[in-house]
Amino acid sequence: MCPISSYDDQAKALAAALPEARLITDPDVLASLGHDDAEWAPVGTPVAALRARSSDEVARAVAACADLRIPVVPRGAGTGLSGGANAVDGCLVLDLSGMNSVVEIDTDNMVAVVQPGVVNDDLKRAVAEHGLWYPPDPASAPWSTIGGNVATNAGGLCCLKYGVTRDYVLGLQAVGGGPAGAYGTRVDLGRRTTKGVAGYDLTGLFVGSEGTLGVVTEVTLRLRPARRDAPRTVVGAFDDLVSAGRAVAGVTSRGLVPAALELLDRACLEAVEEWKHLGIGPGAEALLLASVDTPGPSGDDEAAAIATIFRDAGAAWAEQSTDPVEAEALFEARRLAYPALERLGPVLTEDVCVPRSSVPAMLARTEEIGRRHGVRIATIAHAGDGNLHPLLITPPGDDAARAAAQAAFDELLQAAIDLRGTVTGEHGVGLLKRGGMQRELPLGVRAMQHAVKQALDPLNLFNPGKVIGDDPDL
Amino acid sequence: MCPISSYDDQAKALAAALPEARLITDPDVLASLGHDDAEWAPVGTPVAALRARSSDEVARAVAACADLRIPVVPRGAGTGLSGGANAVDGCLVLDLSGMNSVVEIDTDNMVAVVQPGVVNDDLKRAVAEHGLWYPPDPASAPWSTIGGNVATNAGGLCCLKYGVTRDYVLGLQAVGGGPAGAYGTRVDLGRRTTKGVAGYDLTGLFVGSEGTLGVVTEVTLRLRPARRDAPRTVVGAFDDLVSAGRAVAGVTSRGLVPAALELLDRACLEAVEEWKHLGIGPGAEALLLASVDTPGPSGDDEAAAIATIFRDAGAAWAEQSTDPVEAEALFEARRLAYPALERLGPVLTEDVCVPRSSVPAMLARTEEIGRRHGVRIATIAHAGDGNLHPLLITPPGDDAARAAAQAAFDELLQAAIDLRGTVTGEHGVGLLKRGGMQRELPLGVRAMQHAVKQALDPLNLFNPGKVIGDDPDL
Repeated sequence: MCPISSYDDQAKALAAALPEARLITDPDVLASLGHDDAEWAPVGTPVAALRARSSDEVARAVAACADLRIPVVPRGAGTGLSGGANAVDGCLVLDLSGMNSVVEIDTDNMVAVVQPGVVNDDLKRAVAEHGLWYPPDPASAPWSTIGGNVATNAGGLCCLKYGVTRDYVLGLQAVGGGPAGAYGTRVDLGRRTTKGVAGYDLTGLFVGSEGTLGVVTEVTLRLRPARRDAPRTVVGAFDDLVSAGRAVAGVTSRGLVPAALELLDRACLEAVEEWKHLGIGPGAEALLLASVDTPGPSGDDEAAAIATIFRDAGAAWAEQSTDPVEAEALFEARRLAYPALERLGPVLTEDVCVPRSSVPAMLARTEEIGRRHGVRIATIAHAGDGNLHPLLITPPGDDAARAAAQAAFDELLQAAIDLRGTVTGEHGVGLLKRGGMQRELPLGVRAMQHAVKQALDPLNLFNPGKVIGDDPDL
Repeated sequence: MCPISSYDDQAKALAAALPEARLITDPDVLASLGHDDAEWAPVGTPVAALRARSSDEVARAVAACADLRIPVVPRGAGTGLSGGANAVDGCLVLDLSGMNSVVEIDTDNMVAVVQPGVVNDDLKRAVAEHGLWYPPDPASAPWSTIGGNVATNAGGLCCLKYGVTRDYVLGLQAVGGGPAGAYGTRVDLGRRTTKGVAGYDLTGLFVGSEGTLGVVTEVTLRLRPARRDAPRTVVGAFDDLVSAGRAVAGVTSRGLVPAALELLDRACLEAVEEWKHLGIGPGAEALLLASVDTPGPSGDDEAAAIATIFRDAGAAWAEQSTDPVEAEALFEARRLAYPALERLGPVLTEDVCVPRSSVPAMLARTEEIGRRHGVRIATIAHAGDGNLHPLLITPPGDDAARAAAQAAFDELLQAAIDLRGTVTGEHGVGLLKRGGMQRELPLGVRAMQHAVKQALDPLNLFNPGKVIGDDPDL
């Protein structure tokens, strides 16, 4: 928004407006705060960063930025995979990771109120002490914040049965913009009750909006009772990806809803094995992991039925793991797949989601596209949700490989759209999937999105250019 | 919008614009189509009504109404309880009840696509033939339409465990308005996949918007596998309402999530008994009905634990009903409570929702307010959700009683707000709860609601004056 030459002036104006703030202008620190984990996404140069400590500080920062027309880019732990938290030129990066208090745990009503910087696993631990459970479990749960989870409507492993972040957000406090003149005002959206329909669902609108409508400063979350027993794990090894996809479709069409149904292909298994030597799935083209938490004999029946479906779909072997240590190791391998692959080179992460019956077709298309472009693609997937993460890996510094990966990335997005799916299931649009989203959504819908953005952020102050920004048709 | 004298001209202009339409101008038919079940809400005089048969007809009607500046009031079966479907002066009533096709049942992906006029129970029956289940079950399910359920984000009995309408709506087709110039355009919002975060959640925004943002012409719904066994029923009879409330709070705080947890007070029980002679709960001040559908021995444990909690809270008796006929009769009594009370005089229906731990306090406040105003209040409640329906009954034609009931109604809304609850859990704001909503939501939030409405309906064509309309502060 401001030319580079005026950065110093802008930083000085901000410092004057936020006298008490821990304003950061050191270029090295700014560089580290200026991007998320989407290695392929463009990164701009911020004017400054603020490590906010309270909603009051956020409110003052937003008001000052509105006066100065300085864009505001909120960030949590920076574990995003779409560039949604990347700095844009001339912005203030608003680092919310220090606002990490669990404000309240209301056990009687199974509700928690938290600041946005609380790490997902920290919240899980805090509520577990009260016999409660916060289900959404993105693979980043040990590091990612609730604010970031809200921004992208994060999912995870157990959303097949237990839903995504939006299903748990009852209310939000946000520092918003619109209607015009309200920049820097705190608003409490939503409610504390399980039901409610007083006015439009602005809470739901903010969830998944990736910081483009305002800055979330507090989140009221629904909780569930803790699960009593350790879940059962069913493992199936398959000699080809498409049989594994058939097994996934079989589980769904038989009306079985395991707590998780995850897929890892050979490339993932090998990368984890090479790194951690867990002894998982040698030789298989794909492993399916199902987690069953239905209690008692019904759970036993469910696990047995899933193993049978795996075998009928052509599994080389399928077993219910009776050893909890082994079961934990299997899901640990799932969680380690992404970092294991990142060791091999820059990763371009897909997050397509297709109707569950189209998982075999999407896996087949993924293999074909990778082969044709000569791109190494490893796939991990929340297969039961139809949410696939083909990971495109390129050797560092190889420009031709990078171009091929970009072409394959775009074709994978189109393949998902062709199968009546979406370009992003849970990572958000950020910068990397703007083009894909423009192809997915008809112009009329994009026009409505823009109208909403303009109504609530008339200055285009909040995370400009992300998600619905930069649409050539509008 | 148009003066009464020009009604004929407007009707003629509509007829010219919609040559093939079954346009209704007969005053008697218009009168019957011009209101819902909220007997206390004001009713305007429509110019005409259209029994729409296709989304194409809806699109043309909306385009014509935009040209003529004729407000559009959509309606389904007219079972609403807040006046949301009531005609406003000079409007076109768009009757969608004839658009009642189940367009598609996708068993592999557990998805149904339906027109808005499909009756809730008809959808349940259609998907049951495929081993599937559509959970939302408002008491109006035998008559109310999916379009109406979407408009109010309808809940019902089983949402304690299975969620409300919004949790099942994956996508919508709507004939929208904004941004300006788009009136009469069909847009497909949302998706068919279980997850998705490509752009703002406009689908969720439309759910619960009571026809004020556009006309829903098709709904894509998530389904669940059918439940295999008949649920168990636990009944508790209490000598006072507040003990029953304590039992409800006890169930929640122990982490038990029955499929339903319903309360009927003595006035409801007597009205049902007088009408249907089911032999239910003689002498009790309140009956609690819990439905437990967890399969196998875990379900037995859950039912036993609930019965124990009922007894510990002071139930005169509490039993698990082992007779499915008896269990069905109990829930039948619950469903009949509203029509049974309607026989006694005009009913003013509350729909407050409070945090579950505040159910005893809300019941106590309800008794006190009824006593103080001399108003007969019968309470039925989705008690496990904290969603209470105090029903205010007045003798027909008694103006003083009516004024007292209105005063009690307003105090009940305030009591819910004071307990950190909401004025409407599942019936919507419509006309009757606009004042309550204005007290519940801070001005900043209402300003955001208005900004969204203006962005998506700049002509204020869709159901004007409802929900967020008529706000004196904006």
